[in-house]
Amino acid sequence: MRVLGIDPGSRYCGFGVVEDAGGTRVRHLAHGVLALSESAPMEERLRALHQGLTRELSAHRPDFVAVEDVFHARNARSALVLGQARGVALLAAVQYGARVRSFEPSVIMQAVTGTGRAEKEQVGRMVSVLLGISPFHGRLDASDALAAAICGLLRANDPVLRLAR
Amino acid sequence: MRVLGIDPGSRYCGFGVVEDAGGTRVRHLAHGVLALSESAPMEERLRALHQGLTRELSAHRPDFVAVEDVFHARNARSALVLGQARGVALLAAVQYGARVRSFEPSVIMQAVTGTGRAEKEQVGRMVSVLLGISPFHGRLDASDALAAAICGLLRANDPVLRLAR
Repeated sequence: MRVLGIDPGSRYCGFGVVEDAGGTRVRHLAHGVLALSESAPMEERLRALHQGLTRELSAHRPDFVAVEDVFHARNARSALVLGQARGVALLAAVQYGARVRSFEPSVIMQAVTGTGRAEKEQVGRMVSVLLGISPFHGRLDASDALAAAICGLLRANDPVLRLAR
Repeated sequence: MRVLGIDPGSRYCGFGVVEDAGGTRVRHLAHGVLALSESAPMEERLRALHQGLTRELSAHRPDFVAVEDVFHARNARSALVLGQARGVALLAAVQYGARVRSFEPSVIMQAVTGTGRAEKEQVGRMVSVLLGISPFHGRLDASDALAAAICGLLRANDPVLRLAR
């Protein structure tokens, strides 16, 4: 099974692709960040995000898409802006035809670090260790997306989590 | 000029279409509500919303799309959910190729009632008076969308508001 993870944002949207390599092994296939112009009107940023994600979905052909859920935001305004990007990411995934599921940040952290209360940097380090790739520096959108993808691979068929939203 | 207004929501999304009828007159063309299944997963609701809005945009061929902005939500969680629907609405509008603009609720109220602090019901009454259509009963998603459309018609070329987001 191949999973594409998405860490959606209205300025940077991370994506990462992994696949099942037999047993408990996970193979890294790709990762990247879509950077959206801060000066462009919101609707143009959303169009660029939709185009970018649709392109990556077509290129990597995942069976399953795991999207990081967000319960916490600084305030209602930033939650609304983040929601706009997240809605477009979910739309691109469902239009592509993959199974889609949202995972709470604590569930993703648990999947890659063994605890739901890890630091963002610890998640980044564990992603590079688990996948055998170079450590991440600077922005962590891509490593967060890879963490979501790893979580998706482990939890795709979990019946309890399938019911949770 | 023809304007399609949208009052986006994750459960009900109102739309309304008006056009310039010369002078200060506004002609009503259509309105309706897209009802999204509450039991469906969010990504399926967003797909249905995108399909429904794309269908209405193609049917009514507006030059301009006015989307009600939302600054206030009960909490960050509901703002996130509302943002998802709003992002998909903005995407459908920009993909269709119309000019798109967001208007704050107070600006829309001002346009149809003369005050930015009107009651929701007053907006509904003024919309039916201005357009010469039957009063609205029950849910006001469609009349809110028509109010956004009327506001868009009046403000489409306002240079100050074009810069505001």
